[in-house]
Amino acid sequence: MTDKEEYEVTPWDVEGNVNYNELIEKFGTERIDDEIREKIIEAAGEDHLYLRRDFIYSHRDMDKILEDYEEGEDFFLYTGIGPSGKMHIGHVISFYFTKWLQKAFDVNVYIQVTDDEKHWDRDMSFEEIDKNAKQNIREIAAVGFDPDKTFIFRNREYMGNMYDGVVKVAGKINNSTASAVFGFEGSTNIGMNFWPAIQCMPTFFENKRCLIPAAIDQDPYWRIQRDIAEKLGYYKTAAIHSKFIPALTGPDGKMSSSKPKTAIMLDDSPEEIEKKVKQNAFSGGGTTLEEHREKGADLSVDVSYQWLHNLLLEDDEQLEKIAREYSSGEMLTGEIKEILIEELQEFIGAHQERKENADELVQQMMYDGDLAQEMWDKKIDLEPGK
Amino acid sequence: MTDKEEYEVTPWDVEGNVNYNELIEKFGTERIDDEIREKIIEAAGEDHLYLRRDFIYSHRDMDKILEDYEEGEDFFLYTGIGPSGKMHIGHVISFYFTKWLQKAFDVNVYIQVTDDEKHWDRDMSFEEIDKNAKQNIREIAAVGFDPDKTFIFRNREYMGNMYDGVVKVAGKINNSTASAVFGFEGSTNIGMNFWPAIQCMPTFFENKRCLIPAAIDQDPYWRIQRDIAEKLGYYKTAAIHSKFIPALTGPDGKMSSSKPKTAIMLDDSPEEIEKKVKQNAFSGGGTTLEEHREKGADLSVDVSYQWLHNLLLEDDEQLEKIAREYSSGEMLTGEIKEILIEELQEFIGAHQERKENADELVQQMMYDGDLAQEMWDKKIDLEPGK
Repeated sequence: MTDKEEYEVTPWDVEGNVNYNELIEKFGTERIDDEIREKIIEAAGEDHLYLRRDFIYSHRDMDKILEDYEEGEDFFLYTGIGPSGKMHIGHVISFYFTKWLQKAFDVNVYIQVTDDEKHWDRDMSFEEIDKNAKQNIREIAAVGFDPDKTFIFRNREYMGNMYDGVVKVAGKINNSTASAVFGFEGSTNIGMNFWPAIQCMPTFFENKRCLIPAAIDQDPYWRIQRDIAEKLGYYKTAAIHSKFIPALTGPDGKMSSSKPKTAIMLDDSPEEIEKKVKQNAFSGGGTTLEEHREKGADLSVDVSYQWLHNLLLEDDEQLEKIAREYSSGEMLTGEIKEILIEELQEFIGAHQERKENADELVQQMMYDGDLAQEMWDKKIDLEPGK
Repeated sequence: MTDKEEYEVTPWDVEGNVNYNELIEKFGTERIDDEIREKIIEAAGEDHLYLRRDFIYSHRDMDKILEDYEEGEDFFLYTGIGPSGKMHIGHVISFYFTKWLQKAFDVNVYIQVTDDEKHWDRDMSFEEIDKNAKQNIREIAAVGFDPDKTFIFRNREYMGNMYDGVVKVAGKINNSTASAVFGFEGSTNIGMNFWPAIQCMPTFFENKRCLIPAAIDQDPYWRIQRDIAEKLGYYKTAAIHSKFIPALTGPDGKMSSSKPKTAIMLDDSPEEIEKKVKQNAFSGGGTTLEEHREKGADLSVDVSYQWLHNLLLEDDEQLEKIAREYSSGEMLTGEIKEILIEELQEFIGAHQERKENADELVQQMMYDGDLAQEMWDKKIDLEPGK
């Protein structure tokens, strides 16, 4: 993967219906160009599918992270989950990339479970939130984070340890800013209005650079952190952004746990995966065999191709072959779906296998691992000098 | 004190320049009339100066508290302190009345130390807030609450135990309501905007009626609690309101710790008290001896008289004599000031004496007493059924 041409836009490197460069301009982030991509890979010591395929494509201050890293300064990773229901493949992809970063750079990961925000945002009962949180945490632990360098925490449980910090952060954000960034209104409850302070808090868990892996649309929510961090004596958070993953049912939709057709759930059986892909995966192929053989498939809207390209198919040569044959009409939708089914079954199957034995990992990442113990032993009061 | 005439407005029962009846109408509270006053005294088993002198003069749902109490249902008291500086006599008066209520009705008292809100409201450093909080808590403990039925808690320290409840309360209050009641604006920080949830929280510490003793101007801030309490399965809070205590320097001012001339501080020495009263106590007497002898003093603006009447002088006959002689010009300002100095020295001296041995009381009310232990052992998640 040192050949620069691999990173250029090719017929099999297609982006659906989103103008991703426009999003970079709109939000003011930086493109992950060849130079920074190679630097990441060099520092990490290995390549990653998402980088190679340009699925991870934008960043903020990743260059600074790498510069510091070269000089022996490490950083930490921060991500989170809103426990509003079961998790699907779209949720877990970002955790897998975060795990890769953790392993490659040997850094701490903090994972916030927003069991307060989901009550404010959706008026969901604690009972339901807590049931979801428990399931979600098990899925996340199964991803394979380092149990001694990962801290998964539920805000409602951990607030006692971080409230001092949250108070200071909240004091630096005013209603107008929160409203401008999050769209809060008069009818928004004061809990939700307070949420930006809690969301920002983990970016100050260590006095090092924080790196947030997230989809590009999440970027604006970190503007607040970047406005206040230096006033508090901390670093502006860095970020590394992915493109969007289209819903199974088509590139205009969003995967949603409440609409099972749109997504592969992490607990789907091999049979369910097969059935869902066959029945629901949106095809860019022709509507008739004749049309397909003549015009070929539109890869930019074909969900099977998109998922294989962005998320699943490691083998570059095989992908190129699929792109060529499917876009020319030689390969049929049924055939590419078979490849997707196989890849999904393997990915989900391996995840489910790890989940079988995740209880101990959950315990370590939440309470007993080295980092978890350290976090429970301290109060985080935002005194960067300490 | 069963003679009804004692409660009527008399020449020595004067109110300065505030129209207290108008405040009752404005806020929609109830007058403490003879009937309810006698009921309170009867249930309490004893009278109190502040009630007798009409200093405690308005209420909400005090009738319901008393009805319940007659039927064997008890209630609990809730008050608080903002640790923004040293305490003066104006701050402690309300605590002394609360202590009297606790003793008379044998009920629990919760005292919130708002070490979060003071950061949000005044951008005060934690260091300064914590120093003030420590001093303030010692003053409060010296008032003499029952150490096994009193819980003094600092929000930043106790948040871990009450955050579940705070989350639920915050979910029931929207930005518009908070803004209408507290006057929050776009420039208000999101911490302060969240404050109403934390302020309300202790009214739900028990599934009984809560009674808040406070100055009448605090009443509007409890509208939010009264709007949401029943939705959460709890009681609307009751309240019992005092009039205002004029600053030492005159009825138009407010006592303030940052302007030592305006107040008697709880750590003033007998000499300081004497000096302050002589130099600063606003006089309603004539400007010359001749004028005073001719027209007498205006009791309604004379701070010495007001403080003796509302707060300090137990002896009704002596008070009546002072009123008569001072308003007629027979008694001079210097003479009533001497009486005030003596009463203040006695009150503050007794308080300071109790404060000498308050460390153990602080420890009990915050951590080791029966109620404190119970509160530290539980999470308050607002499940009224539990």
